[in-house]
Amino acid sequence: MVALYAIYKLPEDSAAFDDHYKTVHTPLVKTMEGLRKLELSRVKRMLTPPTSTVAEQPYLLCTMYFDDMPALKAAMASPGGVAAASDLMSFAGPLVSMVTAEVEEISL
Amino acid sequence: MVALYAIYKLPEDSAAFDDHYKTVHTPLVKTMEGLRKLELSRVKRMLTPPTSTVAEQPYLLCTMYFDDMPALKAAMASPGGVAAASDLMSFAGPLVSMVTAEVEEISL
Repeated sequence: MVALYAIYKLPEDSAAFDDHYKTVHTPLVKTMEGLRKLELSRVKRMLTPPTSTVAEQPYLLCTMYFDDMPALKAAMASPGGVAAASDLMSFAGPLVSMVTAEVEEISL
Repeated sequence: MVALYAIYKLPEDSAAFDDHYKTVHTPLVKTMEGLRKLELSRVKRMLTPPTSTVAEQPYLLCTMYFDDMPALKAAMASPGGVAAASDLMSFAGPLVSMVTAEVEEISL
């Protein structure tokens, strides 16, 4: 499994951000080809001092899961991926950090 | 569902970090009371420029899922949580950012 993470900086107008995110952005993300699971994490607290990597408390994390890296790349290039990216840049371009990762679920 | 995220800065000696993480730290994390799911995400690429929140590409993300905030707090205070936190500070204190979040799975 792989994931595309979108980590957001606190927006100036969080109510407008949340509204756009829910009513416009999420429906576009859901059209991404090959998307297996979608998780939205609203950050409550940062428990540690800033580092040079995470320099302040994020506002929101979105995790988009795909089968593998080729599927993730195909999803980003699919019509849904292009539409979601274009919308993202229009309302949150300076706020968002996108990272790709290989995800392992550790058995408990 | 809630999550405790540990987001790591690139270590100086990533081989030593990975070895300690796998052989010592993960077994301790798994003893945290109430842990429902454990995911390890190895970051491959950061696709966006730095922001004042995510200022450089993270090395690793660990997501620890719990039923709710009281369960997360109880887990951190449990013997397993205290042991995992103590170990974390010993090998990765200046590298790690810990954040708590409320997690929603969006139906596709």
